[in-house]
Amino acid sequence: MPSTVKLAAYLFTRLRQLNISSVHGVPGDYNLVLLDYVAPAGLHWVGNTNELNAGYAADGYARINGVGALVTTFGVGELSAINAVAGAYAERAAVVHVVGTPELAAQDEGRLIHHTFNDGNFRRFAQMHAHVTVAQASLRDPEASPEMIDDVLSQCLLHSRPVYIEVPMDLVEANVSAARLQHPITVPEALPDPHWEDALTALLDRIYSAKQPLILVDGETRALGIVDAVQALSRLTNWPTYTTVFGKGLLDETAPNFHGIYKGSYAPAAAQDYFKSADLVLVFGPHFSSTNSYSGTAIPAASAAVLVTDSTLTTPNQTFANLPARFLLTHLLQTLDAARVPPAAFTPPPLPPPPDTPAPNDLIMHSVFWPRVAAAQLLQAGEVLLAETGTAAHGARDLALPRGARAFFPATWLSIGYMLPAAQGAALAVRERSERSGQKGAAPPKAVLFIGDGSVQMTVQELSTIIREGLDVLVILLNNAGYTIERVIHGLRAGYNDVGAWEYGLAGRFLGAGAGFAVKVQTWAELEDALSDERVLRGRGLRVVEVLMGREDVPEGVLKVLLEKEKERVGAEAEVKHSAATGATYHARRKREIGYGLSFSTDSLYSNVKRKLH
Amino acid sequence: MPSTVKLAAYLFTRLRQLNISSVHGVPGDYNLVLLDYVAPAGLHWVGNTNELNAGYAADGYARINGVGALVTTFGVGELSAINAVAGAYAERAAVVHVVGTPELAAQDEGRLIHHTFNDGNFRRFAQMHAHVTVAQASLRDPEASPEMIDDVLSQCLLHSRPVYIEVPMDLVEANVSAARLQHPITVPEALPDPHWEDALTALLDRIYSAKQPLILVDGETRALGIVDAVQALSRLTNWPTYTTVFGKGLLDETAPNFHGIYKGSYAPAAAQDYFKSADLVLVFGPHFSSTNSYSGTAIPAASAAVLVTDSTLTTPNQTFANLPARFLLTHLLQTLDAARVPPAAFTPPPLPPPPDTPAPNDLIMHSVFWPRVAAAQLLQAGEVLLAETGTAAHGARDLALPRGARAFFPATWLSIGYMLPAAQGAALAVRERSERSGQKGAAPPKAVLFIGDGSVQMTVQELSTIIREGLDVLVILLNNAGYTIERVIHGLRAGYNDVGAWEYGLAGRFLGAGAGFAVKVQTWAELEDALSDERVLRGRGLRVVEVLMGREDVPEGVLKVLLEKEKERVGAEAEVKHSAATGATYHARRKREIGYGLSFSTDSLYSNVKRKLH
Ligand SMILES: Cc1ncc(C[n+]2csc(CCOP(=O)(O)OP(=O)(O)O)c2C)c(N)n1
Ligand SMILES: Cc1ncc(C[n+]2csc(CCOP(=O)(O)OP(=O)(O)O)c2C)c(N)n1
Repeated sequence: MPSTVKLAAYLFTRLRQLNISSVHGVPGDYNLVLLDYVAPAGLHWVGNTNELNAGYAADGYARINGVGALVTTFGVGELSAINAVAGAYAERAAVVHVVGTPELAAQDEGRLIHHTFNDGNFRRFAQMHAHVTVAQASLRDPEASPEMIDDVLSQCLLHSRPVYIEVPMDLVEANVSAARLQHPITVPEALPDPHWEDALTALLDRIYSAKQPLILVDGETRALGIVDAVQALSRLTNWPTYTTVFGKGLLDETAPNFHGIYKGSYAPAAAQDYFKSADLVLVFGPHFSSTNSYSGTAIPAASAAVLVTDSTLTTPNQTFANLPARFLLTHLLQTLDAARVPPAAFTPPPLPPPPDTPAPNDLIMHSVFWPRVAAAQLLQAGEVLLAETGTAAHGARDLALPRGARAFFPATWLSIGYMLPAAQGAALAVRERSERSGQKGAAPPKAVLFIGDGSVQMTVQELSTIIREGLDVLVILLNNAGYTIERVIHGLRAGYNDVGAWEYGLAGRFLGAGAGFAVKVQTWAELEDALSDERVLRGRGLRVVEVLMGREDVPEGVLKVLLEKEKERVGAEAEVKHSAATGATYHARRKREIGYGLSFSTDSLYSNVKRKLH
Repeated sequence: MPSTVKLAAYLFTRLRQLNISSVHGVPGDYNLVLLDYVAPAGLHWVGNTNELNAGYAADGYARINGVGALVTTFGVGELSAINAVAGAYAERAAVVHVVGTPELAAQDEGRLIHHTFNDGNFRRFAQMHAHVTVAQASLRDPEASPEMIDDVLSQCLLHSRPVYIEVPMDLVEANVSAARLQHPITVPEALPDPHWEDALTALLDRIYSAKQPLILVDGETRALGIVDAVQALSRLTNWPTYTTVFGKGLLDETAPNFHGIYKGSYAPAAAQDYFKSADLVLVFGPHFSSTNSYSGTAIPAASAAVLVTDSTLTTPNQTFANLPARFLLTHLLQTLDAARVPPAAFTPPPLPPPPDTPAPNDLIMHSVFWPRVAAAQLLQAGEVLLAETGTAAHGARDLALPRGARAFFPATWLSIGYMLPAAQGAALAVRERSERSGQKGAAPPKAVLFIGDGSVQMTVQELSTIIREGLDVLVILLNNAGYTIERVIHGLRAGYNDVGAWEYGLAGRFLGAGAGFAVKVQTWAELEDALSDERVLRGRGLRVVEVLMGREDVPEGVLKVLLEKEKERVGAEAEVKHSAATGATYHARRKREIGYGLSFSTDSLYSNVKRKLH
């Protein structure tokens, strides 16, 4: 290795060493030269259509790959992406945000250049990013830069949260020492508290003495780097294991002691009974936001909860700090005496009875849609399920995953539009992973995205990147002509909850895939056809299944309760309209409202599905 | 008027009083109840497809209407929009950003709710907005709220810059005093310095004694509220009058003493000679960013410059502070003795000779495109021209405007994707203005948008809002298969400057307009056909004219110079490729590259234009 390298080469080599294979972003005047160093470092450049989407994609990539990277341009680019960076911060995706900035002299002299407020202040955007990143480096000096880069990257890994690196144009090609590149960047191993064995003993005592134990896996388990250990513990104890919505997809869902998402006050009675009277609930990576905890009702009682966070173990009567989760789990598994682990007497609640099979011409309701989708078993090992905030995420949370599949569900940030670019990033990451593992023959793993029309509209152009990158993504688009989750929260019939009527089936053609594959379904028979269509099940590239659903139809659970409340609030008149909404009258009205007119039946894109109604 | 009103009603009534007729934004859990008060206040709700676009649209609306408003939801919504708010700050659009926030108790208790970082800190997003707004109000107390709202709104007007108002959910329906609603919000009239007459005298002296005078109108003239006064001055003096790029469209371009944009070192020699040896250059609303001043070469010499800013008059040897621009101009016009104004001996440089008419099958080059567009006279009085950052803004700056038309050109923020949603906002504002003025019979004024494919991809979904709102917008889309302006800056053939190939002609159908009107042109004959097509010239609704252009073709001027430099940098090999790029070989290659295959000729959308090549 040469003794010096260009600064940009240093930075991208580091990213490559962190197992990043692709970098997401958008070019701009202040990062063009920087981008010349992406490919030579062995990285693939994914040019997204805009920076918010690039940020979302980098986040999706990071959640699969461990780390992801985003390159934007000063001011306009970085601020466009900041909401995505904030989401990565909130839900702990390790995204390295690299910003190409103006040359140092321009900054120091406060020159009035573009992408500023024409006032000579160049520090605002970095100050804004300090709110949404765990570490920042404003590179100014080639000598100091390698260490600064390394420090920031190691913070990124340590916290599994975004960091921010400013690279002034005139530093891109500065020579820096290559010496540090010999040593990989590692997460600083925190020294555990000298009394850590007390903590371990306390934990073991709780485990050995548990009478009614349960394991609850939350989403930060991934950020803590203890997924495998927790899986091992679940297997070893054979204790009933639940996840939160955020934790879904981290553990093997086919294990006999895995019971899905614990839904708090919406869980079946048998599950609630067990959970509430448990004397030990081992929670890994807790992230008890109201959204992720069914408004707190899925949080275990303090008298039973044992929480494992980044560096703290909390038991009902003690808190042990300075105890890194990974260290604790390693020692726990080494020490645990399987023979002393008490069994759990848990009888899983019976599965809900399958809904009656609808008639072929029936419209598609959530109540029958999700069980039918579950039966279709759309996912394979190594693939990713993504369900966007909205009715989609509520319905999809009951889909069981094959072993080794992953899932993205909204936890706390809940920025709609996130899931589509995240699907691009995630699909790329699983494809790269499968390529690395050398499974040549098998079809590359795909992503399956469930998403509402309102959310699709936010970031739709990223379908273009999915197409350009040749990624295998199946989009199941729930078209209910607007923001139905908002309708049930407030404004059931308010115009502000409507969105424009689009011809979603044209997405692939418009955005570059040529004819692409798209199908629109509105009846049970059409759904049946689509879900047994080979192109849906095993096709390649981008595929879109548009499902027409009722404006006021939502899955069972929280949303149904909200719907009933909101119906009551808006009064009886609404009630009448809604009852009509379940029959043929509604269907005709809906067709009119959401604008599917005659053009529908003449569009050859949909000709593969016979339409029975009209 | 009742003595109390709901807080939300107060706020929206105030916006209505400020002459705002439409509010842009996106719903969210924390602003739904707030949105119930939009329509009752007499405001039209424009639901955009995402918040960045809503922010851009509100900015476009504000630049025509004087003020605009944007409503988003806490965290995810407001941060998605922040880059648009930053742009409004940089280029002085008065946008009121109203954010619906969680109830006060949730904030004060630091509850772990969605759209937070799950850490109890609710102040981050407001802190971030403090960087991009001139005033902020975090409403907490019904009694204090009306005055706080008024104060913030008056700052918005005073500075013509965005402001930020947080409305917690539980304050939306709080009763507040309606008393202040009786009195309109006004811009605080700054008291001029007691010695203001000295300033006026100094200014008059300069004017009366000028030997080689010139007026330069920059873009902040609008924010200063002195457009009419400056127009009057230009007419009265009959002095040669130029604008900057940012100032284009503010003055009557049909006036005989109006000479277009002063292009600094790119201006014709005769103009440069006059400008450089001028002894008086009266500059209104100076905004001398490098982009807006041809890298400083369009800034007048300090020995000749007299600058009128918000509240300062600067002459070559004096600075008068506390002198509000409007006050100064009013008194200047009252005092000015037309008889004592010396004439200017300026001979406008000859117009460049018209380019040779291309052969029918010739590809479309910038050199012939813009003169042809100029001849088409696409705009009428009261309409708006928008030209996006890229080759579009460079080419379109020579289009002369009819009297009373306005123009949007990139000045300093230059965030691509801005112009499309801005066209939505601007088209709505001019339609409302024309409706208010009661011109019933005439066709409502339209917006004409020139934009590159890279920029279109950033915010394309806002075409849907243009369609939903039934706005008349003509989009002339320059498709050169990527970021050509970046190509000439750096990376002439770099893959990162390419973008996906879309079938832009499907935009209208995909995004909801049914068949819509779209035409794709690649030869001179096709361009001729399109530019004499009634649907292009006088059609209604959304129309898209896609113009295929060379990847390395740019308008004369700055970009051509950059192109030559960049060609030199990438070396001789490039030269060879480029020469091929101007002939038929290139055409065939480009067709392949940007993906226009056979499907092109079978697409009925384009059947109205005969294609001569393939
Ligand atoms: C960026 C952003 N803007 C606004 C919101 C508020 N919001 C939450 S869910 C939702 C509607 C989602 O509608 P859709 O995707 O159509 O799903 P549906 O519930 O109708 O199936 C909105 C607007 C948000 N979460 N994020
Ligand atoms: C939000 C944002 N991201 C990136 C940039 C950097 N940038 C400036 S111009 C441009 C390319 C514009 O390309 P296009 O619209 O196709 O116009 P062309 O020059 O090709 O005609 C880019 C990426 C920017 N100004 N704003």
